[in-house]
Amino acid sequence: MRDETVKGVRGFKFAARSGGIKKSGKLDLGLIWSEVPARCAGVFTTNKVVAAPVIVTRGRVAGGSCQAILVNSGNANACTGEGGLRDALRCGELAADALGISPELVAVSSTGVIGVSLPMEKFETQVPPLAVELLADRAETVAQAIMTTDAFPKMAAAHGEAGGRPYTLLGLAKGAGMIHPNMATMLAFVVTDARVAPQLLETALRQGVDTSFNSITVDGDTSTNDMVLLLANGCAENPEIGADTPEGELFADRLASVLLELAKMIVRDGEGATKLVEVRVQGATDAAAARLVARSIATSNLVKTAFFGEDANWGRIIAAAGYSGADIDPQKVDIFFNDIPVARHGLGTGKELEEKATAVLKTAEFTVTVDLHLGGGEAVYYTSDLTYEYVKINAAYRT
Amino acid sequence: MRDETVKGVRGFKFAARSGGIKKSGKLDLGLIWSEVPARCAGVFTTNKVVAAPVIVTRGRVAGGSCQAILVNSGNANACTGEGGLRDALRCGELAADALGISPELVAVSSTGVIGVSLPMEKFETQVPPLAVELLADRAETVAQAIMTTDAFPKMAAAHGEAGGRPYTLLGLAKGAGMIHPNMATMLAFVVTDARVAPQLLETALRQGVDTSFNSITVDGDTSTNDMVLLLANGCAENPEIGADTPEGELFADRLASVLLELAKMIVRDGEGATKLVEVRVQGATDAAAARLVARSIATSNLVKTAFFGEDANWGRIIAAAGYSGADIDPQKVDIFFNDIPVARHGLGTGKELEEKATAVLKTAEFTVTVDLHLGGGEAVYYTSDLTYEYVKINAAYRT
Repeated sequence: MRDETVKGVRGFKFAARSGGIKKSGKLDLGLIWSEVPARCAGVFTTNKVVAAPVIVTRGRVAGGSCQAILVNSGNANACTGEGGLRDALRCGELAADALGISPELVAVSSTGVIGVSLPMEKFETQVPPLAVELLADRAETVAQAIMTTDAFPKMAAAHGEAGGRPYTLLGLAKGAGMIHPNMATMLAFVVTDARVAPQLLETALRQGVDTSFNSITVDGDTSTNDMVLLLANGCAENPEIGADTPEGELFADRLASVLLELAKMIVRDGEGATKLVEVRVQGATDAAAARLVARSIATSNLVKTAFFGEDANWGRIIAAAGYSGADIDPQKVDIFFNDIPVARHGLGTGKELEEKATAVLKTAEFTVTVDLHLGGGEAVYYTSDLTYEYVKINAAYRT
Repeated sequence: MRDETVKGVRGFKFAARSGGIKKSGKLDLGLIWSEVPARCAGVFTTNKVVAAPVIVTRGRVAGGSCQAILVNSGNANACTGEGGLRDALRCGELAADALGISPELVAVSSTGVIGVSLPMEKFETQVPPLAVELLADRAETVAQAIMTTDAFPKMAAAHGEAGGRPYTLLGLAKGAGMIHPNMATMLAFVVTDARVAPQLLETALRQGVDTSFNSITVDGDTSTNDMVLLLANGCAENPEIGADTPEGELFADRLASVLLELAKMIVRDGEGATKLVEVRVQGATDAAAARLVARSIATSNLVKTAFFGEDANWGRIIAAAGYSGADIDPQKVDIFFNDIPVARHGLGTGKELEEKATAVLKTAEFTVTVDLHLGGGEAVYYTSDLTYEYVKINAAYRT
């Protein structure tokens, strides 16, 4: 069950500051803290160029415990060499000292300009007061502090129950577009008061990320800093939720819904995007093939510009399916905009239906369904349109 | 040796007409004819959605002989089902009848809007007079007749010698961008009067296409109609050029230079492009890895918009290398704009050099070199910038 009124989660506190890392003077430093060490799981960028905070946090999360997340925007601490690694470690140390916990329990995360060293003097002076300002209902300030070119802060929540004890999941995220003034990052932090078996935490996060953040595309680029963290502190005092149980399935489902809601917000807020398009592929030989086709369509510049132009250009869609690498038989392909068929058996269905499809394209959110009629493979991708504004945002000089 | 003054090739004749297939009334029908059946080789789209003329021509070229190419713009005859196949066959028949040769010796090729049947009545009336109008020095009119959104006709030529007999290669091409009003196509036709062993024709074309048309990217999409044909009619009366001979190497080299010149013209004329950028990757573990990295950089929207913004944004370049799938060690990566190093060992080289690099980016043609320092693998890709104009051209309605 979704709940937009959720402001916090038992046992977690939040704080944010304008630390002067962003030149704009906006919020740029956030802290998430759990009263007790939480179990944790993480998913990290697959880019081989990995930012220093990812290296540090990946190692710590592997230990399975985390009590605090220190995050900054305005500087990604990427391509900063060994000095960057020292800075990331020092950031964790500052938070640990201020909170009176072991540095091993602190995750660090950064987003912003790359190739520039973190302004450590800001962290030295700003992190200690941050730890004093922690409050239970300030999650939204952290959602604001991780914004770069995001137009709005992104939060989503869900509730569940285990052993008669209710629990809450609360997620914060920032934009997936690689972002002016330089590449930036998809960051998401989900906290829950549920007590969850470590293995379930791990598998539920991985599956949830696959059907959400790994199924969206704004520009197809993968950043050096991408990170999704899940912290479960058990303050709901439920009996531990195990894998392969109905309660485990419920938890995974709730987590997936939070992640998907955040992912859709990211696409909707994609750089310059005016449309959120669900690309649904069915009838593929298998799920992997469906995914190839969905991704190929969702990342095609030509398809994305046609969405912007509100052109029911199914030719570009079938062509993108054709070069996806998956098996397709053009003469079996049906294509729909919402429920309007624009192509049947690989052939256009005529002017009248195309006009109806064009009306669908004029809406802000719609679904493109491609049925390959070859098997049972299905996949869904979410994408945006490619607009003048995208070019403008990304062509601008770094300043 | 290149020669821009070449107007024709011994034994070949050309004609073009405004057949009314394009609404603009511009040239849209071209015919290339050899006095004698020529040996031929072809490379075709890898898209699984294949246009009718590609199906017909692929089969005929496999036979190794070709005497005429009939090509039209304005309509791709793609996604047109069995009717489209009948139309493509009929086009070949019309040309064959007019020329008094077997239909098996006629290649057909189309580019333009997809999902719409060819206007066969135009072909019925226009192809016969076309055959009467063939002239030796009209290659350029065919280059014009295959244009869609191309800003200029594309031709390139080279000379060689075999057994004391000079020969000429002449190539015509049209744009690679998938093109308004719908996806279009990369077409290239190269004719030569050299007598060449069939196997050399095949391998030289394949290799030449790999380092030219397969190494360029305007928008990464692959069309349903892509086709490169090579015809060698032997009218130079040289002793047959064999594979694995110095003369064979010379021929392959000359062919590759013609193809590369055409490919660069296509990038330069990419939709809305203002820059031609050579992406040179060296020091990869092997050639395949180098190609992965070069392609990843050359197709990244973020890299391409940074080129448009004249921003020496090496962070986006190293990030694109990082997610290419190839082995890279960020701490070994050097990046140059022309000869200006902007990153060494994965770290920025400072403001002064970045300013010099920015000056390089302000030019219309430059090279980005990425040295991975891992091995001997090298690859080159050619790309353009991503501009407002690209979005504008591709977002426009089909009309």
